[in-house]
Amino acid sequence: MIAKTPKPPYYAVVFTSIRTEGDFEYAEMADKMLDLAEKQEGFLGVESARNELGITVSYWESLEAIKKWKLHTEHTEARENGRSKWYNAFKVRICKVEHEYGFEK
Amino acid sequence: MIAKTPKPPYYAVVFTSIRTEGDFEYAEMADKMLDLAEKQEGFLGVESARNELGITVSYWESLEAIKKWKLHTEHTEARENGRSKWYNAFKVRICKVEHEYGFEK
Repeated sequence: MIAKTPKPPYYAVVFTSIRTEGDFEYAEMADKMLDLAEKQEGFLGVESARNELGITVSYWESLEAIKKWKLHTEHTEARENGRSKWYNAFKVRICKVEHEYGFEK
Repeated sequence: MIAKTPKPPYYAVVFTSIRTEGDFEYAEMADKMLDLAEKQEGFLGVESARNELGITVSYWESLEAIKKWKLHTEHTEARENGRSKWYNAFKVRICKVEHEYGFEK
Protein backbone atom coordinates (compact mmCIF):
# COMPACT_ATOMS: atom_id res chain seq x y z
CA MET A 1 0.00 0.00 0.00
CA ILE A 2 2.81 2.41 0.88
CA ALA A 3 5.05 2.26 -2.18
CA LYS A 4 8.44 0.63 -1.66
CA THR A 5 10.63 3.16 -3.40
CA PRO A 6 14.43 3.11 -3.77
CA LYS A 7 16.89 5.44 -2.11
CA PRO A 8 16.39 9.03 -3.41
CA PRO A 9 16.78 10.81 -5.72
CA TYR A 10 13.85 9.68 -7.85
CA TYR A 11 10.73 11.48 -9.12
CA ALA A 12 7.12 11.83 -8.00
CA VAL A 13 4.03 12.98 -9.87
CA VAL A 14 1.45 14.34 -7.44
CA PHE A 15 -1.94 14.31 -9.16
CA THR A 16 -4.65 16.07 -7.13
CA SER A 17 -8.20 16.08 -8.50
CA ILE A 18 -11.85 16.85 -7.91
CA ARG A 19 -14.21 14.50 -9.74
CA THR A 20 -17.37 15.31 -11.61
CA GLU A 21 -20.53 13.56 -10.36
CA GLY A 22 -21.27 10.20 -11.99
CA ASP A 23 -18.88 7.47 -13.06
CA PHE A 24 -18.73 7.80 -16.90
CA GLU A 25 -16.55 4.64 -16.89
CA TYR A 26 -14.03 6.36 -14.66
CA ALA A 27 -13.40 3.38 -12.37
CA GLU A 28 -12.72 1.10 -15.32
CA MET A 29 -10.31 3.59 -16.86
CA ALA A 30 -8.55 4.20 -13.55
CA ASP A 31 -7.88 0.45 -13.11
CA LYS A 32 -6.70 0.16 -16.70
CA MET A 33 -4.33 3.14 -16.42
CA LEU A 34 -2.89 1.74 -13.19
CA ASP A 35 -2.20 -1.64 -14.85
CA LEU A 36 -0.63 0.13 -17.80
CA ALA A 37 1.49 2.51 -15.69
CA GLU A 38 2.93 -0.42 -13.75
CA LYS A 39 4.25 -1.88 -17.02
CA GLN A 40 6.13 1.28 -18.05
CA GLU A 41 9.90 1.45 -17.90
CA GLY A 42 11.03 3.46 -14.90
CA PHE A 43 7.80 3.05 -12.91
CA LEU A 44 8.57 2.65 -9.19
CA GLY A 45 5.19 2.58 -7.46
CA VAL A 46 1.92 4.40 -6.79
CA GLU A 47 -0.17 5.51 -3.82
CA SER A 48 -3.77 6.69 -4.01
CA ALA A 49 -6.56 7.97 -1.76
CA ARG A 50 -9.82 9.82 -2.36
CA ASN A 51 -12.45 11.65 -0.31
CA GLU A 52 -13.85 14.87 -1.82
CA LEU A 53 -10.30 15.39 -3.02
CA GLY A 54 -8.38 12.62 -4.77
CA ILE A 55 -4.61 12.32 -4.49
CA THR A 56 -2.56 9.89 -6.57
CA VAL A 57 1.21 9.96 -6.25
CA SER A 58 3.18 7.91 -8.77
CA TYR A 59 6.92 7.39 -8.47
CA TRP A 60 9.38 7.21 -11.36
CA GLU A 61 13.09 6.72 -11.96
CA SER A 62 13.51 9.79 -14.15
CA LEU A 63 11.84 12.76 -15.82
CA GLU A 64 12.24 10.89 -19.11
CA ALA A 65 10.11 8.01 -17.80
CA ILE A 66 7.40 10.49 -16.70
CA LYS A 67 7.44 12.17 -20.09
CA LYS A 68 7.15 8.85 -21.95
CA TRP A 69 4.18 7.86 -19.79
CA LYS A 70 2.52 11.23 -20.43
CA LEU A 71 2.84 10.67 -24.19
CA HIS A 72 1.70 7.01 -24.11
CA THR A 73 -1.16 6.68 -26.62
CA GLU A 74 -3.78 5.10 -24.33
CA HIS A 75 -2.85 7.40 -21.49
CA THR A 76 -3.21 10.42 -23.78
CA GLU A 77 -6.71 9.26 -24.76
CA ALA A 78 -7.61 8.81 -21.08
CA ARG A 79 -6.25 12.25 -20.24
CA GLU A 80 -8.50 13.82 -22.89
CA ASN A 81 -11.53 12.20 -21.24
CA GLY A 82 -10.21 13.48 -17.92
CA ARG A 83 -10.75 17.05 -19.02
CA SER A 84 -14.06 16.49 -20.79
CA LYS A 85 -15.78 13.94 -18.49
CA TRP A 86 -14.15 12.98 -15.22
CA TYR A 87 -12.65 15.99 -13.51
CA ASN A 88 -13.94 19.39 -12.46
CA ALA A 89 -10.40 20.38 -11.60
CA PHE A 90 -6.96 18.84 -11.25
CA LYS A 91 -3.37 19.77 -10.66
CA VAL A 92 -0.24 17.86 -11.64
CA ARG A 93 3.01 18.53 -9.84
CA ILE A 94 6.27 16.99 -11.05
CA CYS A 95 8.67 16.64 -8.15
CA LYS A 96 12.17 15.41 -7.43
CA VAL A 97 12.19 13.33 -4.25
CA GLU A 98 15.30 14.41 -2.35
CA HIS A 99 14.92 12.67 1.03
CA GLU A 100 12.71 10.00 2.53
CA TYR A 101 12.26 8.27 5.84
CA GLY A 102 9.68 5.98 7.28
CA PHE A 103 8.34 3.96 10.16
CA GLU A 104 6.77 0.52 10.39
CA LYS A 105 5.44 -1.33 13.46
CA MET B 1 -9.33 22.05 -1.73
CA ILE B 2 -6.63 21.85 -4.39
CA ALA B 3 -3.84 23.99 -2.94
CA LYS B 4 -3.17 27.25 -4.77
CA THR B 5 0.60 27.11 -4.93
CA PRO B 6 2.97 29.62 -6.55
CA LYS B 7 5.07 29.08 -9.64
CA PRO B 8 7.69 26.34 -9.02
CA PRO B 9 10.21 25.73 -7.66
CA TYR B 10 8.87 25.16 -4.15
CA TYR B 11 8.82 22.11 -1.87
CA ALA B 12 6.35 19.35 -1.05
CA VAL B 13 6.23 16.91 1.85
CA VAL B 14 4.34 13.76 0.86
CA PHE B 15 3.20 11.98 4.03
CA THR B 16 1.70 8.55 3.34
CA SER B 17 0.33 6.58 6.28
CA ILE B 18 -1.62 3.58 7.50
CA ARG B 19 -3.57 4.24 10.70
CA THR B 20 -3.95 2.00 13.72
CA GLU B 21 -7.55 1.07 14.61
CA GLY B 22 -9.27 3.43 17.04
CA ASP B 23 -9.05 7.21 17.25
CA PHE B 24 -6.79 7.85 20.32
CA GLU B 25 -7.54 11.58 19.87
CA TYR B 26 -6.11 11.43 16.36
CA ALA B 27 -8.80 13.59 14.71
CA GLU B 28 -8.36 16.32 17.32
CA MET B 29 -4.58 16.30 16.88
CA ALA B 30 -4.82 16.28 13.07
CA ASP B 31 -7.03 19.41 13.13
CA LYS B 32 -4.70 21.10 15.60
CA MET B 33 -1.58 20.32 13.56
CA LEU B 34 -3.24 21.62 10.41
CA ASP B 35 -4.14 24.92 12.13
CA LEU B 36 -0.61 25.18 13.45
CA ALA B 37 1.08 24.31 10.12
CA GLU B 38 -0.92 27.04 8.36
CA LYS B 39 0.59 29.61 10.72
CA GLN B 40 4.20 28.65 9.99
CA GLU B 41 6.45 30.85 7.93
CA GLY B 42 6.87 29.46 4.42
CA PHE B 43 3.69 27.33 4.49
CA LEU B 44 1.99 27.37 1.06
CA GLY B 45 -0.90 24.90 1.33
CA VAL B 46 -1.99 21.35 2.07
CA GLU B 47 -4.02 18.58 0.43
CA SER B 48 -5.29 15.50 2.18
CA ALA B 49 -7.26 12.31 1.46
CA ARG B 50 -7.70 8.99 3.25
CA ASN B 51 -9.11 5.54 2.47
CA GLU B 52 -7.14 2.58 3.79
CA LEU B 53 -4.13 4.65 2.92
CA GLY B 54 -3.86 8.30 3.95
CA ILE B 55 -1.98 10.85 1.87
CA THR B 56 -1.27 14.38 3.04
CA VAL B 57 0.82 16.64 0.87
CA SER B 58 1.95 19.93 2.39
CA TYR B 59 3.67 22.63 0.34
CA TRP B 60 6.46 24.90 1.53
CA GLU B 61 8.62 27.75 0.26
CA SER B 62 11.93 26.16 1.26
CA LEU B 63 13.67 23.20 2.92
CA GLU B 64 14.39 25.52 5.86
CA ALA B 65 10.65 26.09 6.42
CA ILE B 66 10.09 22.29 6.36
CA LYS B 67 12.89 21.74 8.85
CA LYS B 68 11.57 24.42 11.22
CA TRP B 69 8.09 22.85 11.13
CA LYS B 70 9.59 19.40 11.82
CA LEU B 71 11.33 20.79 14.92
CA HIS B 72 8.31 22.80 16.17
CA THR B 73 7.69 21.73 19.80
CA GLU B 74 4.01 20.80 19.52
CA HIS B 75 4.57 19.08 16.20
CA THR B 76 7.44 17.07 17.70
CA GLU B 77 5.15 15.90 20.52
CA ALA B 78 2.46 14.94 17.99
CA ARG B 79 5.01 13.05 15.90
CA GLU B 80 6.01 11.00 18.94
CA ASN B 81 2.37 9.97 19.43
CA GLY B 82 2.28 9.17 15.72
CA ARG B 83 4.77 6.38 16.20
CA SER B 84 3.37 5.06 19.48
CA LYS B 85 -0.40 5.42 18.94
CA TRP B 86 -1.72 6.53 15.57
CA TYR B 87 0.21 4.85 12.78
CA ASN B 88 1.06 1.30 11.86
CA ALA B 89 3.33 2.61 9.15
CA PHE B 90 4.19 5.85 7.41
CA LYS B 91 6.58 7.29 4.89
CA VAL B 92 7.70 10.90 4.52
CA ARG B 93 9.12 12.10 1.22
CA ILE B 94 10.67 15.55 0.89
CA CYS B 95 10.38 16.74 -2.68
CA LYS B 96 11.28 19.73 -4.82
CA VAL B 97 8.37 20.67 -7.08
CA GLU B 98 9.90 21.43 -10.46
CA HIS B 99 6.87 21.81 -12.75
CA GLU B 100 3.14 22.10 -12.33
CA TYR B 101 0.08 22.44 -14.53
CA GLY B 102 -3.60 22.22 -13.95
CA PHE B 103 -7.12 22.32 -15.28
CA GLU B 104 -10.31 23.85 -13.99
CA LYS B 105 -13.82 23.82 -15.51
